[in-house]
Amino acid sequence: MEKIKIGIVGYGNLGKSAELGIIQNKDMELVGIFTRRNPDSIKALTEGVNVYSIDSAKNMTDKIDVMLLCGGSMSDLPVQGPEFAEMFNLVDGFDTHNKVQEYFESVDVKAKQSKKVAIIACGWDPGMFSLSRLFGEVILPEGRTYTFWGKGVSQGHSDAIRRVKGVLDARQYTIPVESAIELVRKGGNPELTTREKHIRECFVVAEEGADKERIEREIKTMPDYFADYNTIVHFITEEELKEKHSGIPHGGFSIRTGKTGVNNENNHTIEYSLKLGSNPDFTANTLIAYARAAYRLNKEGVCGAKTVFDIPPAYLSPKSAEELRKGLL
Amino acid sequence: MEKIKIGIVGYGNLGKSAELGIIQNKDMELVGIFTRRNPDSIKALTEGVNVYSIDSAKNMTDKIDVMLLCGGSMSDLPVQGPEFAEMFNLVDGFDTHNKVQEYFESVDVKAKQSKKVAIIACGWDPGMFSLSRLFGEVILPEGRTYTFWGKGVSQGHSDAIRRVKGVLDARQYTIPVESAIELVRKGGNPELTTREKHIRECFVVAEEGADKERIEREIKTMPDYFADYNTIVHFITEEELKEKHSGIPHGGFSIRTGKTGVNNENNHTIEYSLKLGSNPDFTANTLIAYARAAYRLNKEGVCGAKTVFDIPPAYLSPKSAEELRKGLL
Repeated sequence: MEKIKIGIVGYGNLGKSAELGIIQNKDMELVGIFTRRNPDSIKALTEGVNVYSIDSAKNMTDKIDVMLLCGGSMSDLPVQGPEFAEMFNLVDGFDTHNKVQEYFESVDVKAKQSKKVAIIACGWDPGMFSLSRLFGEVILPEGRTYTFWGKGVSQGHSDAIRRVKGVLDARQYTIPVESAIELVRKGGNPELTTREKHIRECFVVAEEGADKERIEREIKTMPDYFADYNTIVHFITEEELKEKHSGIPHGGFSIRTGKTGVNNENNHTIEYSLKLGSNPDFTANTLIAYARAAYRLNKEGVCGAKTVFDIPPAYLSPKSAEELRKGLL
Repeated sequence: MEKIKIGIVGYGNLGKSAELGIIQNKDMELVGIFTRRNPDSIKALTEGVNVYSIDSAKNMTDKIDVMLLCGGSMSDLPVQGPEFAEMFNLVDGFDTHNKVQEYFESVDVKAKQSKKVAIIACGWDPGMFSLSRLFGEVILPEGRTYTFWGKGVSQGHSDAIRRVKGVLDARQYTIPVESAIELVRKGGNPELTTREKHIRECFVVAEEGADKERIEREIKTMPDYFADYNTIVHFITEEELKEKHSGIPHGGFSIRTGKTGVNNENNHTIEYSLKLGSNPDFTANTLIAYARAAYRLNKEGVCGAKTVFDIPPAYLSPKSAEELRKGLL
């Protein structure tokens, strides 16, 4: 079997998870990892996988079928997306919801020129949760969609706490309010405020002698990040943070409730939920499945930017259409 | 706006639900209901909708964009599927899992000849649960898939009880075993027998003077239907059956558990669950969403039999690709 040749751009949490995920897919092989750092400073987890300077990617367009862009949405992808779409089929996990359309357009124009496929914003939100929201509203047009995140670590909020003066390190968990989820599940179509949907729990390592009261106050009143939430702050030691909070779990609930019947007498609830031991591992595995689709679609002559909404699910699977119908339908 | 013109073939539970579902979709209109019964004996719920003899459908190929086949999988669809695919785009809820491939082939050949699109086996299982199984295994290749059905009414099992001598009427509920679901959610990858996954609860109306012990024994030992399950039998009056058991609720859980990480140390759980106040309403609404896809794909020149695995999700929504990216991604 001819394997799909994959490259990884960016070797942070997501890139490392992608490396492991590729091993789980027998129809794929990892050709190389591309980094902005000195390639000699990085050793791949997988035996025999080379690490290259990101600049050398342009010389390897004939050696790689699909590039997984594993950089961040803030500054990496807006540059790398259009740049790599000029040379490769690609998949990424762009996750700044309100900039998706702008990013899509910038990648689309390049991918159409190069006749490559670029599937952007894969992962679980955007990604699987987006699909859940779409299926929910097309099947139950008279209804309402709710998304809850957590319990899980928010990298952005953890970073925000670290920027407070006197903070050495921090970990922030987003926790959905169980009673709010129950209310939604019961089909009551409640109007929920930000504060009613999620709690933010923070584990903070303060500098020796720092004013903890001030730190707590600055966190709890931080606009956008914490002010609109019920926020709990715990001060712990560096050792405890390492020991108890080094994982990157996440998850959430996407719920659609709706009504049907002559007098809307029938209530329906669709619930899609995720409990993820490792957020980057799950996100990477989603990117990998969509890499298979990018490869196949491009083989059929398709090009341009795509999202999870545009991909026929069968393209994600190594099984044939007949195998899928017989085994999974 | 030009509306998508829909026809309904078969006016049982599913056909009636489809009629109601179309009203919820502003880009569609119901052109007619087609029946094998005397059309004059049927009155549509919707004002102004005509009921026709099924034989007159062949004269209306230019008046209907998509036919919803709402007949049964046992004897109706195997005949109607290929027959209508010769004339119309169509969608159906064929649900005999082990005959799907055979049925697919019989419809595919006709739909390719007529250059129409036929999306078969829509609904929730097959349908939404099939998609959930597919997404589960492509994202977590090292894992395991579980499907639980219920709590809900099984029409087939209710019919089987009615065939027992001395039974006037019956309703059978399939109930998933909560402790088994919990075990699966915890990621223990348990091996579960048929008996460990579901309970069957039966509400039976017996003829006056019938031997209830014999009826109960015959139900509980019925091969395929009940012998492999823990089965509970209640005898109730006809009035109680009508009052408490006239609804057709259903639902279920599709769960994928899997592992990732250097040493498979990260556990993940994907759960897709449905609680349906009316099984036929939900199934019909799914067919209707796929009717939109059939219409659009055919406009683009696509033809042949398809399943939910083949349809890009965006085709299900009346919203534009850009609206979907901005609002749902």
